[in-house]
Amino acid sequence: MALNIVIMAAGKGTRMKSATPKVLHKLAGRSLLAHVLKSCEPLHAAARIVITGHGAELVEAAVAADIGTAAQAAGGIGFVRQMPQLGTGHAIQQAVPALVGEGTTLILNGDVPLIETATAKALIDACAGHALVLLTVDLFDPSGYGRILRDPDDDGVLAIVEHKDATPEQRLIHEGYSGMMAAPTAALKRWVGQLSNNNAQGEYYLTDIVAMAVAEGLPVLGIKASSETEVLGVNDPVQLAQLERAFQAAQAEDLMHAGMRLADPARFDLRGTLTHGQDVEIDVNCVFEGEVELGDGVRIGANCVIRNAKIAAGARIHEFSHIDGEKPGGASVGAGALIGPFARLRPGAQLGADVHIGNFVEVKNSTLAKGAKANHLAYLGDATVGERVNYGAGAITANYDGANKHRTTIGDDVHVGSNCVLVAPVTLGKGATIGGGSTITKDVNPGDLAVARGKQVALTGWIRPAKKR
Amino acid sequence: MALNIVIMAAGKGTRMKSATPKVLHKLAGRSLLAHVLKSCEPLHAAARIVITGHGAELVEAAVAADIGTAAQAAGGIGFVRQMPQLGTGHAIQQAVPALVGEGTTLILNGDVPLIETATAKALIDACAGHALVLLTVDLFDPSGYGRILRDPDDDGVLAIVEHKDATPEQRLIHEGYSGMMAAPTAALKRWVGQLSNNNAQGEYYLTDIVAMAVAEGLPVLGIKASSETEVLGVNDPVQLAQLERAFQAAQAEDLMHAGMRLADPARFDLRGTLTHGQDVEIDVNCVFEGEVELGDGVRIGANCVIRNAKIAAGARIHEFSHIDGEKPGGASVGAGALIGPFARLRPGAQLGADVHIGNFVEVKNSTLAKGAKANHLAYLGDATVGERVNYGAGAITANYDGANKHRTTIGDDVHVGSNCVLVAPVTLGKGATIGGGSTITKDVNPGDLAVARGKQVALTGWIRPAKKR
Amino acid sequence: MALNIVIMAAGKGTRMKSATPKVLHKLAGRSLLAHVLKSCEPLHAAARIVITGHGAELVEAAVAADIGTAAQAAGGIGFVRQMPQLGTGHAIQQAVPALVGEGTTLILNGDVPLIETATAKALIDACAGHALVLLTVDLFDPSGYGRILRDPDDDGVLAIVEHKDATPEQRLIHEGYSGMMAAPTAALKRWVGQLSNNNAQGEYYLTDIVAMAVAEGLPVLGIKASSETEVLGVNDPVQLAQLERAFQAAQAEDLMHAGMRLADPARFDLRGTLTHGQDVEIDVNCVFEGEVELGDGVRIGANCVIRNAKIAAGARIHEFSHIDGEKPGGASVGAGALIGPFARLRPGAQLGADVHIGNFVEVKNSTLAKGAKANHLAYLGDATVGERVNYGAGAITANYDGANKHRTTIGDDVHVGSNCVLVAPVTLGKGATIGGGSTITKDVNPGDLAVARGKQVALTGWIRPAKKR
Repeated sequence: MALNIVIMAAGKGTRMKSATPKVLHKLAGRSLLAHVLKSCEPLHAAARIVITGHGAELVEAAVAADIGTAAQAAGGIGFVRQMPQLGTGHAIQQAVPALVGEGTTLILNGDVPLIETATAKALIDACAGHALVLLTVDLFDPSGYGRILRDPDDDGVLAIVEHKDATPEQRLIHEGYSGMMAAPTAALKRWVGQLSNNNAQGEYYLTDIVAMAVAEGLPVLGIKASSETEVLGVNDPVQLAQLERAFQAAQAEDLMHAGMRLADPARFDLRGTLTHGQDVEIDVNCVFEGEVELGDGVRIGANCVIRNAKIAAGARIHEFSHIDGEKPGGASVGAGALIGPFARLRPGAQLGADVHIGNFVEVKNSTLAKGAKANHLAYLGDATVGERVNYGAGAITANYDGANKHRTTIGDDVHVGSNCVLVAPVTLGKGATIGGGSTITKDVNPGDLAVARGKQVALTGWIRPAKKR
Repeated sequence: MALNIVIMAAGKGTRMKSATPKVLHKLAGRSLLAHVLKSCEPLHAAARIVITGHGAELVEAAVAADIGTAAQAAGGIGFVRQMPQLGTGHAIQQAVPALVGEGTTLILNGDVPLIETATAKALIDACAGHALVLLTVDLFDPSGYGRILRDPDDDGVLAIVEHKDATPEQRLIHEGYSGMMAAPTAALKRWVGQLSNNNAQGEYYLTDIVAMAVAEGLPVLGIKASSETEVLGVNDPVQLAQLERAFQAAQAEDLMHAGMRLADPARFDLRGTLTHGQDVEIDVNCVFEGEVELGDGVRIGANCVIRNAKIAAGARIHEFSHIDGEKPGGASVGAGALIGPFARLRPGAQLGADVHIGNFVEVKNSTLAKGAKANHLAYLGDATVGERVNYGAGAITANYDGANKHRTTIGDDVHVGSNCVLVAPVTLGKGATIGGGSTITKDVNPGDLAVARGKQVALTGWIRPAKKR
Repeated sequence: MALNIVIMAAGKGTRMKSATPKVLHKLAGRSLLAHVLKSCEPLHAAARIVITGHGAELVEAAVAADIGTAAQAAGGIGFVRQMPQLGTGHAIQQAVPALVGEGTTLILNGDVPLIETATAKALIDACAGHALVLLTVDLFDPSGYGRILRDPDDDGVLAIVEHKDATPEQRLIHEGYSGMMAAPTAALKRWVGQLSNNNAQGEYYLTDIVAMAVAEGLPVLGIKASSETEVLGVNDPVQLAQLERAFQAAQAEDLMHAGMRLADPARFDLRGTLTHGQDVEIDVNCVFEGEVELGDGVRIGANCVIRNAKIAAGARIHEFSHIDGEKPGGASVGAGALIGPFARLRPGAQLGADVHIGNFVEVKNSTLAKGAKANHLAYLGDATVGERVNYGAGAITANYDGANKHRTTIGDDVHVGSNCVLVAPVTLGKGATIGGGSTITKDVNPGDLAVARGKQVALTGWIRPAKKR
C-alpha cells in the first residue's frame, strides 16, 4: 500500500516575531521542518508533500538545499502551496491532487519537530489503509486542547471535543489531540471534499472528518504519543528553547548510555552528529556542530567549541579551544595531540600525531607533521610544517600580500625563533634555525641559521618622556 | 491622597557573612534596595523613606549614587536612621515624622527585591487611605511564616498568627504574611505609637497593628502576591542566588516573547538593559551588562561577555568575544561586522560597517572605518584606522611611551604587514604599505612602501645548542 | 571494639562502557572509591579492606597513589581479591581472613560515593558489635529494590524481599535496601560460611544473612539514609553525571552558606578544595580544581578555570582567565592584582601585589614584583620581573634555545617596548628602556635605552601585487 506523508508547513508563526517562516527556525542546528522530514525518512513514503504558504519560496528552497536538488528531483518531496490559509482541512484539500495510491496518508506538522519515527510508524500500521488513526497525548495540563472522547466499550474514538465546547466533565479528560493523524487515502480525499467552513472563523477544519468517519462506521483509533515533548509545537521562541533543551537532554543521555562521559549534561550542545570511541570525556559547557568525530580516550576541556572536526585517539583539547573545519573533516587533530587552552583551529588545519598547539595560536589551512609545536601566540596560515618543528612564540606566517595568498614550507626539525615573520612564499630547509625577531623573505637552506635583525645599540643617559599635564 | 512609601533597610544580614549591608547586595547587577526603589518609581509617591541602620552611611551613599544627588535633592528619597534596631514597629516609629499627608503609607522591605509594581499598586488601591491591607502569599511550605486568619464570611483578615503560636489546624493554612502592607497614614501613626515591646525579644512588632485595626472595626484586607518569588527575601547567599536565577529566567522569557532567540534561557545573564531588533540570536552562556543594543539579525556566539555596547544590524559576534564599552555606548560595532572568536573590544572601540576583528585582537579607544580588518593577534590602541585597511597579524600600535599616550593614524587602504610596530604618534598615508616586521617611527607618505628591518643573513654549518645535563 | 570496614570494589561496571574499572571513575575529580575511603577516614577503623576484582591492579595502584604508599604501609588499607566474582556473599567470604577483632564490620560499596560519615557512624553505633544493621532508604520509586519488611511491633527488620519475589502489597513498601550494612564481626564470619549458592544465578548473596540473624534471634535493625543521593550507585555515565551534579550542588550550597556568592550555583564546579575569605564573588560557569585559595574580596569573572592557585585579597580575575599551578600553590596572584580577560597563568607564575596581566598574555615560571604590568599579547617564561615594569604588547621572552631553557631578568622600572624579543639568558638593568621591535641578545645597563632595529626606508611609487586569476 502506498504511503503519503503530508507535512503542514504553511503557517506564519506570528509569535516568533521573525522574518523567517516558522518551520525554518532551527532546533539543534536543523530547521523544524528538516527534523520532521528526517523522522519520516525511514518510512519510505511513496510521496512526501510539504504544504507551504507563508514564505513558501524560502521554505521550498531550504528543503531543496537540505536534501539536495538531485535527491528531490529523484522523487523525494513535493510542494503544494496553500494560499490563502483557510484552515487545516483547506490545507489537505490543496494536497489531494498530489496524493498517490489507495493506501494511507500520514499528516504531520512542520512545526512539531520531535515526532518519533516509531510513533509515525505506529499510526501508519494502525491505519493500514482503512482506519482513521489520531495521534493523541496525555497532557499534564490539557487546557486549550481538543479532548479525545473514547467509547467505553471498545476504546475507539467517538469525537474530538474542542476545549471551548467541552462540558466540565469532558474538561477533566487529560487525553488531547496532537494535530497529527493517519487516514485511508481514498476516504481522506472524499472527506476533505465534504468539509464546510460554516463556522465562526470561516475555516475548514480537518478534525471534522472524525465525525464523518464515525458516521460511516469506520474504525477511529487513538494512539498515544510516548511523551508530550514528541507532539509539542513551536509557536514562539520560548517553546523553541524548551524543545531545544529537551532535544539536547535526550541527545546527551543517548551519548552517555553509549559510554561518553559528560561533566554536566545540562551544559552540552550538539547540533549535528557526534561519533565517538571509548572513554571520551567532555567537560562542562562545550558546543559541537556539524560532523564531529572523537577517538578513544579523547578529553575535551570546559568551554570548547568544536565544529566539523576529527580528533584522533588520546588527543586532549584544553579549555577555551575553538576548532572549526567549516565542512566535515575540514579540521583534524592527530593522536595524542595537545591543543589549547585558547587555541583556534580553522578550516584546513590538519595536525599530525603529538602536535602541540598552545595558547593564542591560530592555525588555518596548514598541515603540521608529527610532533610539531606552536605553543604560544602564533599564526600559521597556508603553511606546510614538518616533523618536530618548533614554531616560536609570536611567530607569524605572512601569507597574504594584500592580493594573493602564498605558502610557507617549513622542513623537519626547523626551529623558528620568537616574533619571526615568514614572508610567503618562502621555504625553510630541514633543520634550519631562524633567529628570534627575524623577518625572513628569502628561502633558508637546510641546517643554516638565518637571522635578519638590527644591531643592538645602547644609548646611555637616555631621558624618558615625562608625563604631560 | 498623598502616598508615602517606607522601605525597611536597616538590617545587617548576618547570614550574608559580608562586610556589605544586606540591602546593597546585588541582584542582576543592581542592589536589592535599588530593585525595590525601581518598582516604586511608577507609583509617584509624595515621599519615599528608606529606614537605614546597619551600614547606614553606605546604604544612603549607594542610593544617592544610584538616583543621582540632584534627583534626590529634588524631593526623591529621604532617609531615617533606626539605631538600634528594635523591631519592625520600632522602625516605623522612626519614620513617623517623615510621613506626609493623610493618605496611604506603603511599607516594603529593602531585601525583598522582586516586588512588582502592580502588586504595590494593588495594595495602595485597596488601602485607599482607610483600610489596612496586608500583602499575603500562598506558600508551598508555610513553616515559619505567620498565618493569615480570614473571616469565613467576608474574607477579611482577622489576625496574623505566628507559626509558634499556631494551632495544628492553623498550621494547615498555606497563606502567610509577606511582611509588606499598606495602611492609612494617620491610623498608622497612631497605632505605632501604641505598640508595646512587652514580649520575649523586647521588640516592637508592626504586626500588632492588625489587632488594633480589627479592634477599631477598620477593614483589614489580605491581597495575595502573584508568586512566592515576588515576596522572597534575601537572607543568605543561597537565597540571593535563587532570586538571581528567578529574575534571570523571567528576563529571558520576556525577551523571548519579544522575539529574541536564546539557545538556553538557563544560561543567559542580563545585568542591565538589552534592547534588540528582530531575529536576534544568542547562543549559550552569554553575559550582558549595562546598556546593550543589538540590531536586527545580530547573532552572538556562545560564551560572549558584552557590556555597554551597540551592535548594529547583521553583525556577528563569534564565540569567546569580550566587548566592554565601560559606559553606555562606549563600544560600538558596525552593521555586518564580524567579531571574534577571542576578540576583545575595549572602551572607545568604534567599529564601522563590515569591519573584521579576529582572534586574539584587542581594540581600545580606536575608530575603524568601513571594511577595515585586523584578523589575527594584534593590538590597536588610540588609533584612527581608515577604510579597507588590512592590519596584519601581530601588528601593534605602540601608543604609550611610558608617560603619555599618542595617536596612530592609518589612512584608507593601508596594508600593515605582520608583526609591525607603529610607534605613535605616527601617520601612515593613504594606500601606504608597511613591510612585515617593520618598526615604524616616522610618518609614511601616501602610496609609499615603508620597510624597517635588518638584512637577512645566513650562517651555514651552524651548530645548535646541545641539551645540558 | 575493633572496627573493620569492607568496601566492595570488584565489579566491572559493564554499562560504563569504559576500559577503566568502575570504582576508578571520577566524581568531582576524585575516584568513586576515594570518595568512600574519605568518608570512612574519620571512623578510625582497625582495618579497611578493599575487595578488588576487575582491574584489581589498577584499583590497588590508584588507592596506593591516592593515600600515599607510606600511609598505606602504615596500616591503612588492605586489598583482598575476589576472582571470580560470585556474588556479594562470596566477596565477604574472601575478606573473612582479613577481618580483625570481635567488634563491628561495616560493609560499603565502592561505587556508592556519597555515603556520609554520619550515616556510616550511625550504622556502627547501632551495631555495637551485636546487632545486624541494614542501611535502608526511602525511595520515590522502589522498583527493582529489595523491600524492607519490618516487624510492626518493634520496627525490627524481618526480611529483605527481592522485588521479583515481592507480593503486590510488599511492592507498595517504599523502604528499600541500600546494599550497605554493619554486622558483628564474629557472627558475620560464621554467617558467610553458611551461605549457599543454590539459586538461579549460582551466586552467594550477602542478604541471606538477614534470615540467619533473625533465626538466631539477633536484633536486626534498619537505619534510613538521609537521602537517596547518599546511597545511589554509579552504573553508567548517566548516573555518574547525576551524582556529579548532586555533589556539585551540595558543595555550592555549603560555600554559599559560608558567605561565598555564586551568580549561578548550577554553573559552578569544584573538583578539589576551595578555601575563601569574606565577600568572594564567583560569576557564572567557573571551574576550580585542586587546591584553590581565594582571599577576601576576590572576584572571579565568568568562564574562568582555576587550578591549584592562591589568589590574594582584592584581586580581580576577569572573564576567560585560565590559571593552572599544576601543584598546590603552583601559581599565585598578589593582592589587588588584575588578571585577564583571556589571561593564562601557568605553573610557577608568582605575581606580586597590584600586578596587571591583560589579554592574550601567558606567564610561566616567572616572578613579577609589585605593580609590574604585561597588558597585551605577551609571553613571559622563566623571567624575573621587577617592580613597576611595563612589559609591552607583543613582547616575548625567548627562553628556549631549542635545547635548554634560560632565564630573563628585568630590573625595576624597566620599560620593554612592543613586539620586543628578549633572548635569554639576558638581563635588563633597572630603569632600562627597550625600543619597540627590538631583539635584545645582550644585557642592557641600568638606565640605558637599547634599540635593535632596522632603519626605516621608504620606497615611493611602489606597486602592490595584483590579484592573480
